[in-house]
Amino acid sequence: MSKYVIGLDFGTNSVRALIDDVSDGNELATHVYNYRDGVEGVIIDNTNPHLARQNPADWVEGLVESVKESVKKASENIAFSTDDIIGIGVDTTGSTPLPVDENGYPLSYSKEFEGNPNAMAWLWKDHTSANEAHKITEHAKKTAPQYLTRIGGIYSSEWFFSKLYHLLHVDEKVFDSMASWVECCDFTVGLLTGEMEPGKLKRSVCAAGHKAMFNYDYGGLPSKEFLSGLHPKLGTFRNKLYSEAHPAGVKAGELCPEMAEKLGIPAGIAISVGAFDAHMGAVGSGIKEGTLVKIMGTSTCDIMVFSKDRGGLHDIPGICGMVDGSVMDGYIGLEAGQSAVGDIFNWFVKKCIPSGYESKAKEKNMDMHEYLTTLADELNPGQSGLLALDWNNGNRTILVDPRLTGLILGMTLNTRPEEIYRALVEATAFGARVIIERVEEYGVEVRDIINCGGLAEKNPMIMQIYADVTGRPMKISRSAQTCALGAAIFGAVAAGSAAGGYDSVEDARDRMTGLKDVIYEPISENVEIYDRLYKEYKTLHDTFGLGENDVMKRLLDIKESVL
Amino acid sequence: MSKYVIGLDFGTNSVRALIDDVSDGNELATHVYNYRDGVEGVIIDNTNPHLARQNPADWVEGLVESVKESVKKASENIAFSTDDIIGIGVDTTGSTPLPVDENGYPLSYSKEFEGNPNAMAWLWKDHTSANEAHKITEHAKKTAPQYLTRIGGIYSSEWFFSKLYHLLHVDEKVFDSMASWVECCDFTVGLLTGEMEPGKLKRSVCAAGHKAMFNYDYGGLPSKEFLSGLHPKLGTFRNKLYSEAHPAGVKAGELCPEMAEKLGIPAGIAISVGAFDAHMGAVGSGIKEGTLVKIMGTSTCDIMVFSKDRGGLHDIPGICGMVDGSVMDGYIGLEAGQSAVGDIFNWFVKKCIPSGYESKAKEKNMDMHEYLTTLADELNPGQSGLLALDWNNGNRTILVDPRLTGLILGMTLNTRPEEIYRALVEATAFGARVIIERVEEYGVEVRDIINCGGLAEKNPMIMQIYADVTGRPMKISRSAQTCALGAAIFGAVAAGSAAGGYDSVEDARDRMTGLKDVIYEPISENVEIYDRLYKEYKTLHDTFGLGENDVMKRLLDIKESVL
Repeated sequence: MSKYVIGLDFGTNSVRALIDDVSDGNELATHVYNYRDGVEGVIIDNTNPHLARQNPADWVEGLVESVKESVKKASENIAFSTDDIIGIGVDTTGSTPLPVDENGYPLSYSKEFEGNPNAMAWLWKDHTSANEAHKITEHAKKTAPQYLTRIGGIYSSEWFFSKLYHLLHVDEKVFDSMASWVECCDFTVGLLTGEMEPGKLKRSVCAAGHKAMFNYDYGGLPSKEFLSGLHPKLGTFRNKLYSEAHPAGVKAGELCPEMAEKLGIPAGIAISVGAFDAHMGAVGSGIKEGTLVKIMGTSTCDIMVFSKDRGGLHDIPGICGMVDGSVMDGYIGLEAGQSAVGDIFNWFVKKCIPSGYESKAKEKNMDMHEYLTTLADELNPGQSGLLALDWNNGNRTILVDPRLTGLILGMTLNTRPEEIYRALVEATAFGARVIIERVEEYGVEVRDIINCGGLAEKNPMIMQIYADVTGRPMKISRSAQTCALGAAIFGAVAAGSAAGGYDSVEDARDRMTGLKDVIYEPISENVEIYDRLYKEYKTLHDTFGLGENDVMKRLLDIKESVL
Repeated sequence: MSKYVIGLDFGTNSVRALIDDVSDGNELATHVYNYRDGVEGVIIDNTNPHLARQNPADWVEGLVESVKESVKKASENIAFSTDDIIGIGVDTTGSTPLPVDENGYPLSYSKEFEGNPNAMAWLWKDHTSANEAHKITEHAKKTAPQYLTRIGGIYSSEWFFSKLYHLLHVDEKVFDSMASWVECCDFTVGLLTGEMEPGKLKRSVCAAGHKAMFNYDYGGLPSKEFLSGLHPKLGTFRNKLYSEAHPAGVKAGELCPEMAEKLGIPAGIAISVGAFDAHMGAVGSGIKEGTLVKIMGTSTCDIMVFSKDRGGLHDIPGICGMVDGSVMDGYIGLEAGQSAVGDIFNWFVKKCIPSGYESKAKEKNMDMHEYLTTLADELNPGQSGLLALDWNNGNRTILVDPRLTGLILGMTLNTRPEEIYRALVEATAFGARVIIERVEEYGVEVRDIINCGGLAEKNPMIMQIYADVTGRPMKISRSAQTCALGAAIFGAVAAGSAAGGYDSVEDARDRMTGLKDVIYEPISENVEIYDRLYKEYKTLHDTFGLGENDVMKRLLDIKESVL
């Protein structure tokens, strides 16, 4: 008699429901619902390129549809019964907060604020709050530097309080009307449990710790005094937030009858506290102490965990986040990342590929990435004479500096597109090595590396280059849906062993995750050449990233002054 | 009663004949003959990309055809008579030497060496002799450093002795069989005068001084001892070369009856000593003391002249050549340049422009350079946030270093092709400013700048950027054929005033050259921004060019080791 869990993965453009077998993590059925509002689910403003919002109505609709459809698919299997679903977990993008009323409903549901993007969810990649982020950082540096130590020293414009502060500046009416400011991963859990009122929500420590400076050592959220120093109304607003936050796997509640009816599954199913996609994806990839999980897509997110009692490791300079319980209860979750990886390759393919290449790719029935990869794969390491820095979207780890830009050198009059493409791939691999060296330097040993996400799944050349550049084997997560699988795992933990689930994340992980057979082993001749190239990369990294030559920032200053 | 002169311009792909009015330099007729042998006149070897040769039979055929056809066109003008042609001047590419027999005929004319590329002319851009160039430089540094002071400190693989030395290494039979090694500009003058025997040729001091280390201060060509130190046969060969060299404008002889008949013009016309295209082009642009003439094409050649009696100015570090009389008799000719200018833009257009741009350019009926220029022209200085180094083909002046490569920084995920295009144009302008600052630093004042060549003629955006980057007005030479006009001017000087020509180059220049009406004046807001960007360029220039970070060379080392 199998038991099943549902993982819900709320992404930028869609929501995915995944039904997994609790015993081995095997996928029974999955369904993706694409958001309807905005451009591929993102509400934009043509007069303000920094704005990116999301309509929470899409989440509700998507939740219902994706679960209903995946249950329908699973039901084709005669072994499956909805009565055997024991738990549900949720992962979402973040920080993606929205203003809610006293019942926990989105403010955009009200007549007054209908269609107002400020009353909708502020998507993770909304960058309207840059000034506020800067003010928060400066204010914290002066008055409460401890708030910055676990988040890499700079508070980001993508995060919870920057967005709240900006909302206060641009739409005080919405600010004054809301009863709370809630992350997507908490809101969607509330939808399932029916406990939506802000005071009853079980907030995620992953969201709280990584994005809202929440830490029990400092009394939870930043103090009223600190927030008042930014704006009196922010200080007052602290009461409308929360004083507790929980790791995923903790049971947030049970599926409420109203939602159960909509989904066509029984009420009472255990619902886990939510978390962010990368953090749950790391668990879906099989993370444990000593494992680095790399979630590789348009950007890369690096996740590790280590024991709380290890001591002395809390402050690793340049690591964007270290939060107790953000990945697994009982461990410090460590988050690092590269602001652009696949995005750099996409930029290059869109902006820099001549038509001759397009027609050849078409002839071979390949997309441009595949075609360039076949050409780039024929090159030896070092053969192009090129070297690049992977900073087209700034540097998140270890420099924590959005005001850095790309660099490429070594071009001759014969330099070809595939050579540049390979140099860009190598640059992201060098960036990955910098992160590994930094955490190891501070005592967090990286014993193995598991990769997941589109780039890891689809591009053996990229994986081989990462193996050769880091000198370490690259493993690939077995599941192609590690985030949704991670969410399902937490559903099984919230259910507990008595219900047929698990009592610890470790047990659930060991049973429900695995690796693909292929492992990319480093090739020693290549490792040797890349060691030399990495030295050159690191010199450029330090020259342009550590203040010796701040030309990139001065160019941005000039750019901004002439626009 | 007008008098006329003929200028002959032997280029890489074709030869042009130009018939000008002696009184005002006005063009009466012109004709271009495209070489037949090889690829657009260049004999290449698919197994050796460094090889570039030229069939001297093309020169002979081209000389006859282009003169005959231009005379035919001129004859449509009833005022014109071939009896009124008083002089002929010749400019050519260089260093482009060829092996000749005792009668001065190309060795490739003989049965034995027919079709042998080593027995043809070694075109200026033949790079097969890199090793030999290096050996010559090292040998001179150790034993005769004075030979290097006037040529920028490094003997180039493109030059006379490198090619002669390489010929000895790869085809000793050709080496042993030849009676001399003759530059194209001397060979073609011999064709006209009929005095082709090596001992009778009037060699050009422009070729001798800039490419063969010839200097009367050191006894002419490098000593027998020096050459023997490279190879005993080279030492012996010195006797087959020359001990005198002459500035253009000196009469080399008169048109011989045999050639006169072929050309359909009277025998006895004065023939000037030859010189290189850039040097004669500078005169065709109206060069005088204080004027910098920039000949802008795939690469840029910078020419200046200054008085011999000025003193103390001979050694300007990083200036590739300073030769007494190489431009005008009585002045030191100074040659500097940028190894790639138009070539960088061509590389970018060929290798990095997406098909969307191609179709839009086609729609607008523009070539890609025109289309990118219209887009790039809409950008403000500094707006792209990009900065580039113009070293895709190394750096000729002031670093004299072929082992430097391109660099571009400042890219984001939104960087567009036209932004990169503009950044590349700006990089070449910064490179031009470095040269100006260097010569002024050593006391050679640049009072005005005259531009000629394709880029200067056709692209106002480029000229405006050069004006804004240098903070100086950019003037454009009136003639579109400055090299051939310069050659014609020297024909008029060789003829002398008694024959209706001129007795000095200065007089001929003042009467026969002029400027276009348009002058690109610097725009002060732009100058200000470019001053800031230039400072950044200069820092990168020094970091990567002066040894602080030799990453470009190390990348080339690695590249060469893995190929």
